[in-house]
Formats: sequence, C-alpha cells, structure tokens
Amino acid sequence: MSDQADLKRVRALHQRKHRDAEGLFLVQGRKLVAELLRSPVATVEVHATAEAARDMRLNDAHVHPAHVLERMGTLETGNEVVAVARRPLAADMMPPKGNGLVIALDGVNDPGNLGTVVRIADWFGATAVWCAEGSVEAFNPKCVQASMGSIFRMPVAHGDLAGALARADREGVAVYKADMGGQSVFTTALQRPAVLVMGSESHGLSEGVRRGVGITIAIPAFGGAESLNVAAAAAALCMEFARRSGPQD
Amino acid sequence: MSDQADLKRVRALHQRKHRDAEGLFLVQGRKLVAELLRSPVATVEVHATAEAARDMRLNDAHVHPAHVLERMGTLETGNEVVAVARRPLAADMMPPKGNGLVIALDGVNDPGNLGTVVRIADWFGATAVWCAEGSVEAFNPKCVQASMGSIFRMPVAHGDLAGALARADREGVAVYKADMGGQSVFTTALQRPAVLVMGSESHGLSEGVRRGVGITIAIPAFGGAESLNVAAAAAALCMEFARRSGPQD
Repeated sequence: MSDQADLKRVRALHQRKHRDAEGLFLVQGRKLVAELLRSPVATVEVHATAEAARDMRLNDAHVHPAHVLERMGTLETGNEVVAVARRPLAADMMPPKGNGLVIALDGVNDPGNLGTVVRIADWFGATAVWCAEGSVEAFNPKCVQASMGSIFRMPVAHGDLAGALARADREGVAVYKADMGGQSVFTTALQRPAVLVMGSESHGLSEGVRRGVGITIAIPAFGGAESLNVAAAAAALCMEFARRSGPQD
Repeated sequence: MSDQADLKRVRALHQRKHRDAEGLFLVQGRKLVAELLRSPVATVEVHATAEAARDMRLNDAHVHPAHVLERMGTLETGNEVVAVARRPLAADMMPPKGNGLVIALDGVNDPGNLGTVVRIADWFGATAVWCAEGSVEAFNPKCVQASMGSIFRMPVAHGDLAGALARADREGVAVYKADMGGQSVFTTALQRPAVLVMGSESHGLSEGVRRGVGITIAIPAFGGAESLNVAAAAAALCMEFARRSGPQD
C-alpha cells in the first residue's frame, strides 16, 4: 500500500474517536514496539524505516522513508517505528482477592500521569488500575508511551469508581484513600486485598469518594512542598504497601 | 514600556543562554507566581492580563492583552501571568550534616523529571538536590513549573558528582546508589547524613559513580515492569528514608 494511504490510516488513530471506533491503539519507538511484539497483545501492522525494520528484524513491516514515519507517529522526534495494536478487552472493576492491590485514580486528566501510574502499579505487582469516569483514556499515545509497556500487562478499567469502592467494601476489601488530611500511612494497618485510591491532579478526591467507604491516609510531609504529584504519591504509597506485604530482597 | 519591548525581553529568557547571562528565570501561572511573591526569591517584574493583575492584586504588574501573555510564556495554553525572577546564588555540593539527606541525580535530561524530583525532595525534607555535570538546568521553565514552587526553596547544585560523593564519604556521610542490581532497600541499614544517588533516565548510573564510593540499593520489583521512572523511584526511596527517620503522624 502507498505511503500516503498508510499515513492517513495510522494518523487517524491519533484521535480518540477513531481509536475507540476501531478498537486499536498506537505503539511507538523501537523499545516499546519490541516489547509489544513479545507481549500477548495482538499487533495489527508495523510501519518502520528500512533501518529500523532491518535492525529489529521486522520482516512484515511496511517500510517507509523517515519523513513519513515522522508524520505517522505522535512523538516529537525520532520516530522510526510505529505499530498498530489491538486493544485488550475492556477490564472491569471486579474487587481484588487474596493479596490483590488495585490502584484507583479518582479522575486523571494527564495521559502521561496515567501511563506513569500504570507503570508504577506494574512494578509493585498491583492487580489492576481503576479510573473514575471522565478520566483520560488508557490507550492515548502519551499514556501508552509513559507506561513503557506496562499497558500491555496491566488491566485498566474505567467506570463508576464510588460504586466500585462500595462494592469492594461490601466484599471485605479494604479501601484506602490518599488525602493530605488523612492519617499517616506509617501508622495505619494496611490490609489486603485492598484498593488504594489517589485523587485527581487538580481536585483531589471527588465528593462522592470522599464521603464514601474507606480510610483516609496520607504521606507525612517533612519539608515545604504543598503536595506531591499523583504519580510520585502513588509510588511512595505503593512502596509502603509493598514493604508491608512481607520481606523481599 | 510597550507590549513589544516587554515581549522581546521576556521571550529572550526562553533561551538558556539569556537566562544564564542575566541570572534570571521565568515563573508562570497564577499559582506559581503567587508562591514566588511569597518566597524569598527576588521578583524582577510581573506581566499579567488585566484580569489576573486585578484578581492577584498585582499593583506593579505590566498589564498586557491576553494574546501578548500567550506569546510571552512557554506554557501551551492559558498563560495569564509571567514573572521574571532573580536566580538564587548557585548552590554547592557541601556534604550534608546531622540528619541531612541529599538527592543526587547522576545525569538528568528531562527538565520535567528534574522539577518533579525537586518537588519530591522538598516534600520529604531533603536538604539539597545535586546534579551531575551535563544535566538539564534547574531554571529551565519546564523544571520550574514541574517543581511547583519547590525550586524557590530547595538548593540545586550542579557539578562533579563523583568527586562530591567521594568527599561526602570521606566526611562520614553515607552514600546510597539506586540501581536495579542493588540490595533491597528494605533490608539495608539507612544511615544519616546521607546522599541518595539516582541514575539518569537513559543510562542509569555513570561508570565513575558506579565504581566509586557507596552502597548500591534497589526497590524490589513485584510485577512485570522493567524499571520505574526516575521521579517514581526517587519518591519510593525517599518514602523509605522518611519512614526510617522516625515515627511521624
């Protein structure tokens, strides 16, 4: 197929409406495409420069000149390979079991933040990421790239978060809500299975979640900063959950 | 002074060479400019829309139409207020004392990452941030914005990191280097004063730092992610240093 036809088809996926309609998403860059090809996520097509196709042994890739690849992807510079992948089935908000830990985002607007949280959740062995309705889409290209491939492994569910927390609570799952006014996580008993809820970047916890089930916990402040960004706070809290889950080394 | 003259003067500070030559930097947005005005950092001039100047009671602001403010700042959208501030004196790499904790970055290329680490360092009460030579500049506008004002409080020093670590070690300061191959931080005795060294986003620890003084520590991995980004790793490790520094709530 021609450069132009490929370009048009792939560039359509820069837009959410086309990603949603086709159930597809973009994966960009050598490292991430290599990880996609090793993952259980289905790859629909790969576009690459001749050099990248050769180095990566992409025998089935559509080869294009570098200037076409530059326009095909969303990265600012250095796009050499762009893959189109099929989205995994939408995850649901089933309460976690056993030693499970879900990271829930009570609204997240920045795709880079969501991707970073998905990566953190994956590192610390969380079982899923839940996003409140209205959150940014997990298959946004910036989210995919920021997740560094964790999006291929980590189920991300979108839906009614307050309802899912209430259901989890009824089923005996502990709910911890991160908020500056909460009790120190260091002096809080942390049970499993659990859902750890992080507030949105701009508004913190929503009214419904704030008034709903769960214990409010905080990361003690030692210095002058007013707050931590959502990904840094998630990493710090996941670190404490991980530590409590038993000795590791 | 005219819109055009102001625009030219402030836009020059988008470039590092002009920021370096004049010892100035930009602070943008209502929240951050308000924080600047409350901080000990000297404000040279403030540019604002009439609305922002009125809301923020900026009696001395240079008032411009919104379209001028848009061009004056570096933010993608919604620039209403841009301040020019005087840089604090350059910080040095003096070894920390007492309970002090320095966060050292062994190379950092992304200004957003540096700003986020400065904010994390500030939250957890670190005494300074050190950056290896060749790192991104701390007064880059993206770094300033990502620090959310922590750059007004936290000393950030640039210089010979391996040399500074060797000196710190000679003076009895503990040096901890974060690296995937290190021993679990959970089972490592963490002493103070200390320097916590984080590797660069792309290359990890440099050869000089890797072979130099200090103990190599790691955040145990529980899931499938290959790595954490530098800010998430810094937050997770600072959390453990904070927990060990004594009970808080």
